[in-house]
Formats: sequence, structure tokens, C-alpha cells
Amino acid sequence: MQVRDCLISAPGKAILHGEHAVVHGKVALAVSLNLRTYLQLKASSDGKVSIKLPNIDTFVCWELSELKQLNPCLSGKKEEGQCLDPELVKRLREFLGVTNENLDSSTTATLAFLYIYLSLFGSGEMPSLTVCVWSELPTGAGLGSSAAYSVCLAAAVLCASGAIPTPLKEWEHTTGWCQEDLELINSWAFQAEKIVHGNPSGVDNAVGTWGGMLKFLAGKIIPLSRVPLLRILLTNTKVPRSTKVLVARVKDKINKFPSILIPVLDSVDAISCTCEKVLNEMTREPIKGEHYNILEELIDINQHHLNVMGVGHPSLDTLCQVTAARGLHSKLTGAGGGGCGITLLRPGAAQ
Amino acid sequence: MQVRDCLISAPGKAILHGEHAVVHGKVALAVSLNLRTYLQLKASSDGKVSIKLPNIDTFVCWELSELKQLNPCLSGKKEEGQCLDPELVKRLREFLGVTNENLDSSTTATLAFLYIYLSLFGSGEMPSLTVCVWSELPTGAGLGSSAAYSVCLAAAVLCASGAIPTPLKEWEHTTGWCQEDLELINSWAFQAEKIVHGNPSGVDNAVGTWGGMLKFLAGKIIPLSRVPLLRILLTNTKVPRSTKVLVARVKDKINKFPSILIPVLDSVDAISCTCEKVLNEMTREPIKGEHYNILEELIDINQHHLNVMGVGHPSLDTLCQVTAARGLHSKLTGAGGGGCGITLLRPGAAQ
Repeated sequence: MQVRDCLISAPGKAILHGEHAVVHGKVALAVSLNLRTYLQLKASSDGKVSIKLPNIDTFVCWELSELKQLNPCLSGKKEEGQCLDPELVKRLREFLGVTNENLDSSTTATLAFLYIYLSLFGSGEMPSLTVCVWSELPTGAGLGSSAAYSVCLAAAVLCASGAIPTPLKEWEHTTGWCQEDLELINSWAFQAEKIVHGNPSGVDNAVGTWGGMLKFLAGKIIPLSRVPLLRILLTNTKVPRSTKVLVARVKDKINKFPSILIPVLDSVDAISCTCEKVLNEMTREPIKGEHYNILEELIDINQHHLNVMGVGHPSLDTLCQVTAARGLHSKLTGAGGGGCGITLLRPGAAQ
Repeated sequence: MQVRDCLISAPGKAILHGEHAVVHGKVALAVSLNLRTYLQLKASSDGKVSIKLPNIDTFVCWELSELKQLNPCLSGKKEEGQCLDPELVKRLREFLGVTNENLDSSTTATLAFLYIYLSLFGSGEMPSLTVCVWSELPTGAGLGSSAAYSVCLAAAVLCASGAIPTPLKEWEHTTGWCQEDLELINSWAFQAEKIVHGNPSGVDNAVGTWGGMLKFLAGKIIPLSRVPLLRILLTNTKVPRSTKVLVARVKDKINKFPSILIPVLDSVDAISCTCEKVLNEMTREPIKGEHYNILEELIDINQHHLNVMGVGHPSLDTLCQVTAARGLHSKLTGAGGGGCGITLLRPGAAQ
């Protein structure tokens, strides 16, 4: 079986407002970044399946005959919205010889690839191919690098399997996929994310799939049709942290001081809604300084609220102070406790 | 007429929690400080009335005959809770030759003294006396120095007029005045505060009168019977600011972003209530580290909220950072935008 070559890319994401609050049922806004992950899929005739991930020094190659023995029992292509097949995951872990729970990024990326490949080809003829993925996104910085990888993987293998059309032009960022195709890509990317993250929110793979700006509320993902292009400076504090620990810290604080923290979550919710309203206005009327004044005020208020939730970090305080001294407004993005910060730049700001 | 000598003192105040939010109907907690204002009243036989305020370089002396011509029309001692007598204020302003609205502290202090003296003695025999007031409180720092002055003035003149008993011992801080006496002192002190401040909240003179800790809610002042002694480090940023401007700034922000700011006020309200609860617990059970942990967390959260309201200042940020580097927790107290900050010290903390 010979598949068509394709080149796919997917963007990283940043949370504009609502990180942590979203866990407690509040609105969050996520934006796609102009930092992307790229995947090149090439058909080969050597009877091998190869994956090359130069960013994380991962180069693996299997014989098709090996992979055929891993054939999943389930027949045909699965429907969107499915759960992970635990039997296949178990078999793949055995195949790769992994036993512990805390896997490195190389192993999880390999596992995710094999899961998608076998799920989509396992019941039929398996093609010989080489997949190479490289990224502009740092890993572990909360910028959705694993989701961008998962989206590329899902889209490429779905193309190769014929489930969705192959993008006509290489390097064409906005493909002609219809909503149904995108939902299929997103659902498979979510499977891959589950292998990487365990219990992902689905936010990152949705931004990677649809791009632009998305609104999250009570598990629902709503792409926003009209949003202005924002210039955002990303700063990676490179302070490592665990999202799980930070989410638990916020939960503990809410349990300790419910009457104090619940209003703060309500305020964050209102910040996201006000931000969405202002961004919408910016696409409908001439952009004014006042629009940016409000966006900046919202960033400042939310950063204070995130500090109240206990997910700040001295490195993020420094970012806020350094940028404030230049008249710029910053907040943490994502889990906090280090990670990345975003700084809003006005259109006229110097490079 | 010969009056008895007396020595009176009254403490300054700091707001522990709820500044600004109290303006919008939320709970605030105020504590008295161990910085006091002292007043010595001495009978004289030279037919003169003198006031000496060494802290603000004010030394004024009048002939009794001059003052007798200012006799207020109203007869006898006025009831508690009354309004300022605008006719008397007008006559006093003319007497002192003041025409403009923005008076210096020397003039307002003199005006307040004459108002209280004439209101309480004007209808009867006027005694010759000398009043000397000195203070440990800085003026204009939001620590209630004018209220402490007003309370001393009201108590001393009420003692001299025989309306309340004279404290038996000099330098005795806690007097034996009954609740009714204290309410009378407070109501006259409030009159004096009105002359100094125009539109005071009544918080400062209440703390000056009752001492200890007071709770404010919807215009009601509730002295808290059981509170532990807290060690609080006061830092005067010496950044001048206008309370009026800051109160207006918060109001504007609430009007601009009601859905974002109103929950923040609710959260401040909960902070005050939680703080009151913890302080009460500290008097009923052995004081634990956890009590202080909570008090510190409340201080941090409230400081973030005050920044959200827009009443922070770089000098206060510096205070918070400098003290945080030593494991201490600080917030602004009072109007903000400069002024004073408070830092909670644990019992074991080094001097």
C-alpha cells in the first residue's frame, strides 16, 4: 500500500484568560500562537515505519512485520469521541518495553504515534512510511507543544489512511478541511493527548486543530469567529512546575477559603467575558487606544487574581515588573508557578 | 470658674481589612495602635484660654472676653448624635479670619478646639484654661491622628465641663468611663472630626474612643470584645495622596467593570469576616502557627485585591517585596496610593 505524501502543521496555544478558573466551570479564552509544529509524512517502499523527532532526539524504526503482530482486535476505523483502547495501549507499552508510569517525552511521543498508526491502519493493509516532526514550540512550557504534535499526527495519519482529503499544497497553513474533518482530527488528537498527558482538558488539541481563538465553558469548546490579531510577547521563565500540583493547590485554597476564593473565580469569569466582548468590538469598529487600555487592565487584574489563587511565582512577578517599567502589561499563561508569561504589545510598540 | 486638671490620651488606628470595600457596604476591621495622642488640660487663673500643639507649631491664646462674644445661640449642652452647628462654624471662621476652603492643619485644629470649647461652655460660665496636645502619630498618614486629637479634645472638655467624670489617675490609659460617657465623647469627637475632615466616616474617632478592635458594617460600629494583641509593623511610605481621589478611583473602576469588581468587594468582605473569626479563635484556644498562617494569607489576598481596585503604589509593592523576602506579609492600610503599610509580626519575630 502506497500512501500520499503530506505536510501538516498545527499551532501552539496560550491561555489569554481563565486558566485554573476553567477547572471550576468558568469561561476561559485560548489563542493559537504563530509558533507551530510541522509534520512531514513520506511514503516509503522499504517495508519499514519510521518516526523522526529531532527536537527530542528520537529516531525509531520498525519493520512492518513487527507492527502487524500488534494488530488491534477492533475492526475498521473508530468513531469520533471514542475512549482510549486500553488493550492496545497495554500491548504497545509491552512492545516498547515500558513498565513505569512516568514516561519521558520520547517514549510518550512514540507511544502516541504507534497508537494512532495502529488504530487507523491496524485492521487493513499497513503502509510503509516515514514521519518526521519538528517544532518551534518549547516542550513543557504550557504552550501546547504535545497537542500540536498530536494534531499533526492525527491529521497526517487520517490523510494517509484516506479518511480525510490530503492538503493540496505543501506549506499551506489553512487547509480546506470541512468541519467534520476537523472534528475527526481533533478527536484523534485528543486520543494522542490522553496518551501523553493522562487526563488532558481537550483545550490544547482544540486550539491546535481550529487555530484562532477558542472559548471554553463547562467542557464545551466554542471557536470565536471574529477576533483581531494580537501581538503577544511570550516569555518562558523556564521554571519547571507540575500542572497537577498547581491545580490541586488552587482546589485546596478554594476549600480552605470558599467565601474568599469563589468570588475571585466569578471575577475571572467576568474578565474572560469582558475580554471576549472587547476583542469582538475590535473587529467591528476601528481599533482605539481604549480597547487596548481595557485589555491591559484585564491582564493586570487577572494576574492579581492568579496570585490570590496561589499560582504566581517570583519569576512571573519579575516579568510583570520589568514589562510594567516599559508601560507593558503581563500575566502568567497556563498553569503558572513558573512556565510562560504573556505580555500584550500594542500595534505601535517597538520590536 | 475653676476646672479640674486632667490628662487624656487616645490611640491612633490602622485598618486591618476592608478599606475601600467599607465605602460600598462591606465589613471592615480597624485596630487601635500603641501610638497615642496626649492632651493635658490645666486650669488657669489668668482669664485666658490657650492651646498648644507643639507637633504642628501651633500656640494660640485668647482672652476670655473675646471668646464670650462668640457665645453660641443654642443653650446648654447638646445631645449626642447632633449635626455641626453651621452658624457657630461660620462665626469661628470669621473670628479666626479664615476665608478659603482648604485649611492647614493648624487652623483646623484650632477651629475644632474652639468649636468644642464654645459648644460645651458657651452657654454658661467660661473657664480659663490651657490645653496642650502632643502626639506619637504622624499627621496625614492615615493613622487617625486627627481623630485621636478630636477624641482627646472632646473627652477633656467634657471632663472640664463636668459632663463626664475626670479620670482619677494621670497617665491611666484605660479610664473608668461607662458606655454612655464613651458614646458622648465619641459623638463630640465626631463633631471635631467633621471640622477637620469635612465628611469623615466615624471609624477613626470610634477607634480613638473605644480602642481595641472595631468592626464596621453599613455605618454601624461594633467594638469586638475578644481580640488578641497583634504585633504590627507600621511603615510610612511618606507618599502623599488624597483619600478623596482614591475613593473616587475605586468607584470609577466599579462602574467601568461591575461584573469584575463587585465579586472582589465580596471577597474582601469575606476576608474581614474570616479575619474576625480567626482573631476570636485566638482568644479562645492556644494560639497556633496555623492562626498566623491564615492571618498572613488574608493579608496577601487583600493586598492583591487592593491592587485590583487601583489603590496600590510602587512604594507599597516595594514594602511587600522587602518584607516577603524576610517571610513577612504586608498590605496597605487605609486609603492606599502611598500612605502607610502594615506588616504582621509573629510573636517570635526578631525586633
